[in-house]
Amino acid sequence: MKNLGYYNGKFGPLEEMTVPMCDRGFYFGDGVYEVVMVRNYKMYAFEEHINRMFASASMLDIKIPYTKEEIKNILCQMIEKLDSPNQIAYWQITRGTDIRNHTYSDNMTANLCIMLKPGVLKDIYTEVDAITEPDKRFYYCNIKTLNLIPSVLYAQKATKNGVYDTILYREGGRVTECSHANCAIINKNGEFQTAPADELILPGVARAHAIAACRELGIPVSETPYSVDELMEAKEVMITSTTGPVMVVKTVDGKPVGGKARDIVNKLREYLLNDYLEKTN
Amino acid sequence: MKNLGYYNGKFGPLEEMTVPMCDRGFYFGDGVYEVVMVRNYKMYAFEEHINRMFASASMLDIKIPYTKEEIKNILCQMIEKLDSPNQIAYWQITRGTDIRNHTYSDNMTANLCIMLKPGVLKDIYTEVDAITEPDKRFYYCNIKTLNLIPSVLYAQKATKNGVYDTILYREGGRVTECSHANCAIINKNGEFQTAPADELILPGVARAHAIAACRELGIPVSETPYSVDELMEAKEVMITSTTGPVMVVKTVDGKPVGGKARDIVNKLREYLLNDYLEKTN
Repeated sequence: MKNLGYYNGKFGPLEEMTVPMCDRGFYFGDGVYEVVMVRNYKMYAFEEHINRMFASASMLDIKIPYTKEEIKNILCQMIEKLDSPNQIAYWQITRGTDIRNHTYSDNMTANLCIMLKPGVLKDIYTEVDAITEPDKRFYYCNIKTLNLIPSVLYAQKATKNGVYDTILYREGGRVTECSHANCAIINKNGEFQTAPADELILPGVARAHAIAACRELGIPVSETPYSVDELMEAKEVMITSTTGPVMVVKTVDGKPVGGKARDIVNKLREYLLNDYLEKTN
Repeated sequence: MKNLGYYNGKFGPLEEMTVPMCDRGFYFGDGVYEVVMVRNYKMYAFEEHINRMFASASMLDIKIPYTKEEIKNILCQMIEKLDSPNQIAYWQITRGTDIRNHTYSDNMTANLCIMLKPGVLKDIYTEVDAITEPDKRFYYCNIKTLNLIPSVLYAQKATKNGVYDTILYREGGRVTECSHANCAIINKNGEFQTAPADELILPGVARAHAIAACRELGIPVSETPYSVDELMEAKEVMITSTTGPVMVVKTVDGKPVGGKARDIVNKLREYLLNDYLEKTN
């Protein structure tokens, strides 16, 4: 099959799958999601993603009616059915199905939806451009919710501007993250600096991998706020996400950035790519 | 029929209606909506609601593939089919349908979904209780989007606390609105004061009606920020929405509020209820 969808026990091509109109995902975006890369029919970093999903659901008082193992088993069965060994596996849990009403009953049963499509990791040796925008999102950015209109608008703005992504900053200039990726710099002290994991950013799995890689490689890490000005002056600027673990940024708002600590980014790129290739071999 | 759903030309009972899994509403909440009250099979204030929907869609770069008249005609045909003459009519427009990708193509066709269910206006002579919570929402609150997780959480918190609604305030104590309703006070100067219509609140139709009523009744209006402290000390506190045009608040966080300008709230209640009854007669 080219792609494959799943909803509460039913399977089919994505284009043919339907869901109930009264799924709260459809009118409130009332749910959470995860995305993992699949290579050679093997998921990368599934445990970290499923753990985060359970944490996201818990923060929204959504009860997942499956074990982590059960979700993994459904995903694994589906992944095998696709023609392409290399895929992007997306799944979401919505709070439940009922006639529209903001409040919900405690015994609502959550819905599991899965969407698989072919896809490969981005080429992490391609350097990219970015723009900046004020971060107008809510203060639940630590939860991986389906309320993604701002992410859509920021991603679209990047595309319209012919760049890879939009780097977001809060009032006062503090950099948070990107439209749907984290952001990091190699600061003037040679540290890998990335915004602290508070309610302003998603605690990204790729971000955690990059931090762990730095620790392995002896690169100092600082999880502290930094500003757009500091980013513009940084030794390197990077965007980290599941689909592009370390994308080195060469311009921001049309101005050249980074390029002053290639030894560090090269070590990071190599380490993270090797980890990905080994674990999906 | 007890209730009725519509999706891109198909009709059916809400519980049986389905929508494509790849509708962007389902995985991004990428759409806008409106709700109107229906009495005696007549919609109240449809023009104001449909105008706001076109404004909301425009701000999100969503192109609505219907005229206002076409949407009205579909709604009117559906309203006649329900057993109950008194209904709550909900409709939403989502950006379109495609395999999940944050960015969208400019020629995507938006989807129209309608949900009708029986319902009546809340009894505006019942006084209500409220709680307060920090407003953690995004800065697109002027757009009536489907990204409603915070509204769900605030509404649920109110219900769990046995109160009518949650009054929200931004850092510094500025009152914005409620979980899905606007908020107003009669301030110490006897003015009807409500937060200015910026990106922190929805420009509510009921709010606009209350302002217009005040102007008719000679009650001065101030669309300026006010704090939780000012609300606690106000002569009256009110929550305004489509389903409850003026709900007078008697306690906030368990403390008595208002009750010092009943002549004003009584005039407002009478004016707004009469307008509703006359226009749906």
